[in-house]
Amino acid sequence: MGRASKREQIAQAAFEQFHERGFNATGISDITTAAGVPKGSFYNHFPSKEAGALEALSRYADTLRFDLLTTPGRPPLERLRAHFEYLSRDTVDNGFVRGCLVGNFGAEVADHNDEIRSAVRSGFAQWASRLGQVLAEAKEAGDVDGSLDVDSTALFILSAWEGTLIAARADKSAAPVDAFFRTVFDVVLR
Amino acid sequence: MGRASKREQIAQAAFEQFHERGFNATGISDITTAAGVPKGSFYNHFPSKEAGALEALSRYADTLRFDLLTTPGRPPLERLRAHFEYLSRDTVDNGFVRGCLVGNFGAEVADHNDEIRSAVRSGFAQWASRLGQVLAEAKEAGDVDGSLDVDSTALFILSAWEGTLIAARADKSAAPVDAFFRTVFDVVLR
Repeated sequence: MGRASKREQIAQAAFEQFHERGFNATGISDITTAAGVPKGSFYNHFPSKEAGALEALSRYADTLRFDLLTTPGRPPLERLRAHFEYLSRDTVDNGFVRGCLVGNFGAEVADHNDEIRSAVRSGFAQWASRLGQVLAEAKEAGDVDGSLDVDSTALFILSAWEGTLIAARADKSAAPVDAFFRTVFDVVLR
Repeated sequence: MGRASKREQIAQAAFEQFHERGFNATGISDITTAAGVPKGSFYNHFPSKEAGALEALSRYADTLRFDLLTTPGRPPLERLRAHFEYLSRDTVDNGFVRGCLVGNFGAEVADHNDEIRSAVRSGFAQWASRLGQVLAEAKEAGDVDGSLDVDSTALFILSAWEGTLIAARADKSAAPVDAFFRTVFDVVLR
């Protein structure tokens, strides 16, 4: 196994372990065991557990299907719905576990590690900005109330999504997800 | 120190440590050190760390000022706002750390411990039911749209609040809290 593919294997295992177990419950040996590499090799590729967590966050962002927010020829609110429907299916299909890695690190680690907090913050900011762009298009097209505060609403919808995943994991049911879609699309964006 | 007051001291320290550090980052010795008791004494009062966490959740629920939701002679939506304004002040005054213990345990522990998941679930359910009662009164009084789905909206507002706290901790700013109030009170409950 070459150096690059070993790093790739460790990074992918770190992402999966952090997402499944959380930050503090994940040991370096959980990551190296999952990657099938010797324990010491982690530190050949990452200076610290935190560095592995930052890489995991960036890998997680790549799974969020932001492309669904910009599908050409589709109305803005349909694109917004497709994005959250994709994320919902992912949660339902996984049996309501794991949730969102950005939110999980936000809840568990942000208070205690400034580098991770900063990565969580910019993860949220970039995500909210993409949602805001779609809302701005919807407003431009007259699909939502003209008085809608686009940035504030985008931030709110993202926060609501994060909390929805936590409630769905606790309830092991889609009820919080259904409540999210009902209120966001039928009330907030009517 | 009598047995009852020792238990009380350990329980209070457990609540504070779990809230500050999270579940996995809290060791029994963090709790007993904070309580000023010998490490072994934890297990004289609690069978396990999980049992301490369940007690912490119940103590946390007692701090949520549910009484503000039922203040006599005050309109329902004002009571709802007072409840969340109290919780917001608490977060702002604490420098945007700690968040909600129910949500934190939901994000960190619910996937891995069924007893804690079940306590988080019933914590959310009871909270949402209290919010739903206020919304039902508001609907009855004609203060919100007659088509409002009370239970679904209550569940959504609680999820949104949980996510809002995570975003505020990551951002170390009140922007997510402001977005919560703007969308919930000016849009959802208009």
